Amino acid sequence: MPKPLILHPDRLLPTTQSTRDIARRLYKHVKHLPIISPHGHTDPSWFAHNEAFVDATELLVKPDHYVFRMLYSQGIPLSALGLGSAKNPERQSDNREVWRLLAQNYYLFRGTPSRMWLDTVFHEVFGFEVALDETTADHYFDRIGEQLSQSDYLPRALFERFNIELLATTESPLDDLKYHRQILDSDWNGKVITAFRPDPLVDPEFEGFSQNVAELAEITGIPTNTWTGYLAALRERREFFKSMGATSTDHGHPTANTQDLNVEQCTDLFNKVMSGRCSASEAETFRAQMLTEMAAMSVEDGMVMQIHPGSFRNHNSQLFAEFGRDCGADIPTKTEYVKALKPLLDRFGNDSRFSLIVFTLDETSYSRELAPLAGHYPALKLGPSWWFHDSPEGMRRFRQQVTETAGFYNTVGFNDDTRAFLSIPARHDVARRMDCAFLAEWVADHRLQEDEAMELAEDLSYKLVQRAYKL
Amino acid sequence: MPKPLILHPDRLLPTTQSTRDIARRLYKHVKHLPIISPHGHTDPSWFAHNEAFVDATELLVKPDHYVFRMLYSQGIPLSALGLGSAKNPERQSDNREVWRLLAQNYYLFRGTPSRMWLDTVFHEVFGFEVALDETTADHYFDRIGEQLSQSDYLPRALFERFNIELLATTESPLDDLKYHRQILDSDWNGKVITAFRPDPLVDPEFEGFSQNVAELAEITGIPTNTWTGYLAALRERREFFKSMGATSTDHGHPTANTQDLNVEQCTDLFNKVMSGRCSASEAETFRAQMLTEMAAMSVEDGMVMQIHPGSFRNHNSQLFAEFGRDCGADIPTKTEYVKALKPLLDRFGNDSRFSLIVFTLDETSYSRELAPLAGHYPALKLGPSWWFHDSPEGMRRFRQQVTETAGFYNTVGFNDDTRAFLSIPARHDVARRMDCAFLAEWVADHRLQEDEAMELAEDLSYKLVQRAYKL
Amino acid sequence: MPKPLILHPDRLLPTTQSTRDIARRLYKHVKHLPIISPHGHTDPSWFAHNEAFVDATELLVKPDHYVFRMLYSQGIPLSALGLGSAKNPERQSDNREVWRLLAQNYYLFRGTPSRMWLDTVFHEVFGFEVALDETTADHYFDRIGEQLSQSDYLPRALFERFNIELLATTESPLDDLKYHRQILDSDWNGKVITAFRPDPLVDPEFEGFSQNVAELAEITGIPTNTWTGYLAALRERREFFKSMGATSTDHGHPTANTQDLNVEQCTDLFNKVMSGRCSASEAETFRAQMLTEMAAMSVEDGMVMQIHPGSFRNHNSQLFAEFGRDCGADIPTKTEYVKALKPLLDRFGNDSRFSLIVFTLDETSYSRELAPLAGHYPALKLGPSWWFHDSPEGMRRFRQQVTETAGFYNTVGFNDDTRAFLSIPARHDVARRMDCAFLAEWVADHRLQEDEAMELAEDLSYKLVQRAYKL
Repeated sequence: MPKPLILHPDRLLPTTQSTRDIARRLYKHVKHLPIISPHGHTDPSWFAHNEAFVDATELLVKPDHYVFRMLYSQGIPLSALGLGSAKNPERQSDNREVWRLLAQNYYLFRGTPSRMWLDTVFHEVFGFEVALDETTADHYFDRIGEQLSQSDYLPRALFERFNIELLATTESPLDDLKYHRQILDSDWNGKVITAFRPDPLVDPEFEGFSQNVAELAEITGIPTNTWTGYLAALRERREFFKSMGATSTDHGHPTANTQDLNVEQCTDLFNKVMSGRCSASEAETFRAQMLTEMAAMSVEDGMVMQIHPGSFRNHNSQLFAEFGRDCGADIPTKTEYVKALKPLLDRFGNDSRFSLIVFTLDETSYSRELAPLAGHYPALKLGPSWWFHDSPEGMRRFRQQVTETAGFYNTVGFNDDTRAFLSIPARHDVARRMDCAFLAEWVADHRLQEDEAMELAEDLSYKLVQRAYKL
Repeated sequence: MPKPLILHPDRLLPTTQSTRDIARRLYKHVKHLPIISPHGHTDPSWFAHNEAFVDATELLVKPDHYVFRMLYSQGIPLSALGLGSAKNPERQSDNREVWRLLAQNYYLFRGTPSRMWLDTVFHEVFGFEVALDETTADHYFDRIGEQLSQSDYLPRALFERFNIELLATTESPLDDLKYHRQILDSDWNGKVITAFRPDPLVDPEFEGFSQNVAELAEITGIPTNTWTGYLAALRERREFFKSMGATSTDHGHPTANTQDLNVEQCTDLFNKVMSGRCSASEAETFRAQMLTEMAAMSVEDGMVMQIHPGSFRNHNSQLFAEFGRDCGADIPTKTEYVKALKPLLDRFGNDSRFSLIVFTLDETSYSRELAPLAGHYPALKLGPSWWFHDSPEGMRRFRQQVTETAGFYNTVGFNDDTRAFLSIPARHDVARRMDCAFLAEWVADHRLQEDEAMELAEDLSYKLVQRAYKL
Repeated sequence: MPKPLILHPDRLLPTTQSTRDIARRLYKHVKHLPIISPHGHTDPSWFAHNEAFVDATELLVKPDHYVFRMLYSQGIPLSALGLGSAKNPERQSDNREVWRLLAQNYYLFRGTPSRMWLDTVFHEVFGFEVALDETTADHYFDRIGEQLSQSDYLPRALFERFNIELLATTESPLDDLKYHRQILDSDWNGKVITAFRPDPLVDPEFEGFSQNVAELAEITGIPTNTWTGYLAALRERREFFKSMGATSTDHGHPTANTQDLNVEQCTDLFNKVMSGRCSASEAETFRAQMLTEMAAMSVEDGMVMQIHPGSFRNHNSQLFAEFGRDCGADIPTKTEYVKALKPLLDRFGNDSRFSLIVFTLDETSYSRELAPLAGHYPALKLGPSWWFHDSPEGMRRFRQQVTETAGFYNTVGFNDDTRAFLSIPARHDVARRMDCAFLAEWVADHRLQEDEAMELAEDLSYKLVQRAYKL
């Protein structure tokens, strides 16, 4: 007999009864607030085309590196999970078999946020009352498949059902934003905006960098073979993104390094980079300089700047060779901020027109570097606990280590940062529960009054993100 | 209607009732113990002159970088807070307006230790029953102003009312300690001693370094243009400080690096440094060597040595240019201890005449480096959680990460390290509450017996600091 | 009147009643499971000879660096504790006096795991009902001495009474494993296996390195003066260790660095190393290469590989000169894994024949580096919280920081890693209590179902270690 799927209404709330009661009141206050998702990786074509999702595996396994990396870590080949079929189009995946593999190994996810997100999706979106395991795998696969073909499971219907007020995707400057255009031109009112992510054009080590820069010239009609032309072309794309609704840029760099070189140095470095013969250290300097250039443009155009540093991409060489990017082998590294951000902050840290949101994969920087920086510089705010830390314990540590120095108001609410569309409400729900649990503890030991905590719960769930991303 | 100002008697104590009951008993035992403040930055002239403090802004906002940095981080210019008027004497600050700014923005401090310290001051020192907000700002400003002019709010009266048994200030070797002299010569019995802080004379990168060294020669009558003369002059100032009651030295360095060079190397380095042409790396080596020299003198004169490393001073170049030092832009950095302290420990780590108290701004060193070092070297003890970490969560993490390896007896009680005189009792109270809360948790899960915890609470609040600072 | 020795049955369990009840049920389920100790440093001669232990001091103080380092940190000379008598055989220690010193200073251990382990030994093994202090020191010393001479306190009897299913010791490749041989040849059924620890032969900076390599040639009859001969000789010793029951190797390196050089480079480096003239950096490269070589052999022979990096050995120069290795002056250092392990993982990280267990002394790597690596690479698993972290708070932090990314199933159960034989059951008991406490918290806030937690408790206490070490 299958086990019941239980989503306890008090999950993640404190276990001491009187504190739980406070947390319940706070959570009740914010549970139904609309979702603002200012940073994520969903595919805008879903909302442009509004076509049915294929099946459980395409929707819930293949796009979710949290899911397939855990299975891979326990010896299940990525090919058995249907990954890499984009790179090897001749490879067929049997999606029902993939789903069975997930079901058989679902116990591996005990204690992980993936388990909580998936169970929430299973229950809240698809209405399952039995837990996923090998005996219910087919039942799950069939029922999800059926439901996905129904009109109320189409992307736009789910968007509305999820009470999403705004969803931001992330695109390269080379993207024509045609799906966003289609959404804008449609009669649908869902707000799906883009964010400007120039990594492929500002990182000399990005695959196809020089080709990307050439393509930028084509798209903009501005020659990009000079430093000033290159900047002008980027500026134009920012304008285009902004005109399409973007309010932010995003930068995924290996480090948080910034530079503030003079024009001659920039020109020389740009020429070296464009010659394709720059060293690793010159590539790093170029990326660092480009962060400061992007900040300068943010001061002009008002777009909020986000920096997501510290990931060692494609750590697993064999998998990268076989499956390409984003196959779960990105690993965090130590990340320094105090010296790294200084050149940028020296120029714009005190500028009221500038807004910089900094994220980290290195929790040691929370209390040592990031909270003190955010608790001082007017331009700098802290992004929420990110990738690997967007979990209950990760969120708790973020608040515990950041709040006493930076306060709550130098943070910016929650980001789901996901391409797993269905998990968005589950992720926001976890964040709201954890914030309410955290606030309740501080009410219970009399560090906050309950009415203050009530206001804070709303700020953390909704208002801060609205303000930080200028929505 | 204004909100009440509530200071709950159980604040910061554990939320589980039975554990809270234990914590209450422990706290009751230590709540009224005298305050020993062995390390801080109050102004000795307050106690020498015993003149009334001016007003709420001069007393509670301007000297407290925790307060004004938070306001600054949210876009309020330092000039609007009356800062920098020392540097720009023509600048007038409207202290009532500054106070109103604090009141309007007081919500920013939710969850920060500043809020807790200030509320405690408001209630315990000034007797407020309503919370500070924009509606009560003037009431606060007026009433505090009135009270400060009364005799029982004069510095010495507050000192006594705070039950301070001993207060240490911190002075440069160039200081003539005239205020300490006046206090000693007065009929007042309050113990206000100094601590020897030679940074301006041992750090070649300190503003006015060479002038400082020249002044040292003048004061002591010992030529400081040779390595041996320089050391002799410093030794004489230590003797003078000791004769005035000092029992400790304090060293605020960018790193914890120490060196043990031979006399020729020292002489060469000193000459280079005095020539004003030393590199950044030579300056660092000189500071490192000077820590070992100071340790050697501690072995001679018995003064306890404190090292406070790891702050990147004056990070915000614009503010530093406009407002000078100590305007809230000091940011912690990663700090290494194991290799850094080895040269000094190789010489004096096993010496029973030597006592070294090490602090950190980098919490990652608690369990990895500092607790193992303190749990081994007889000379080394751990200072309490410092700057940015002198907060409830910071204190909890300190005990959680240090105790299992170093025990309680390789720590030295609490330091308030503040120039915000009125907050001293509040800070010690927070420390005592957090220690009692921590001990109560370990009694509740049977790691300690309650009678042991009772002894420990007293040790942590009072006895350890007395012993560590040889008071 | 002496104080009672109280070992509360609920020690270390959560303090909220309803959560404690869950933890009790979990703990009851695993409390009596057999002990598997796959990694430790007990002396196999104890079990080969089965002779009585001498006295309390020889058994409980001298072999336990946790115990004597704490006493040393508070000014008690190691010589007064009888240490170093092996190096200075003329030095006699008065073991009763040493024991009295421990007793007088036993309060120093409040809050440390040593206190908990010792109290458990006192009560569970020796039946004491009064606490150790200066008034009971002689009573303790006498009674323990008497009991140790009884047959049911002989090593093998204790092994059985402790319900140890398997105990691994650690030996150098130069060891002839004669004690293991004797145990195998005896009529005793206790399983005491070895583990292959080649540090003295792969670390050019190990004391006596070149002599060790020469000795390896003698033992194996394979000339070790060429790179291939050296590897062949090591391979043969691995085979011998495996034939004697070893299932794992262990590597204690200053860093986690690995290398993957080609044969020419290896040959050159080996020749340099053997010439005795390699630099510190070449020594490090050699160690790094040898980790990869050991991994290659693990792929062949199936032995599980353990890496224990990050200890700065013999930090205290004076003590090292006087007392030699292992006198408590080993200090953890920052340890990087992401770049360090990449060469080895590039070769074997995806190989299903390879199994690598990584430990750390640097807790900052738990969530940032190790959990993401273990949550991705099939070959990599995480060792439990180690040295300085094998404590209640250390274990809690390990689970809190690792589980959400790596899950429970990329960890390998508990290691006691001790030479303090009597403390083995106490250490495993602490680990089981902390795991049950941790699981109970997650059941109480509905992240896990209780039946899942029950399974997990058993996995963490018993099954995972069995599987990870191929037992």
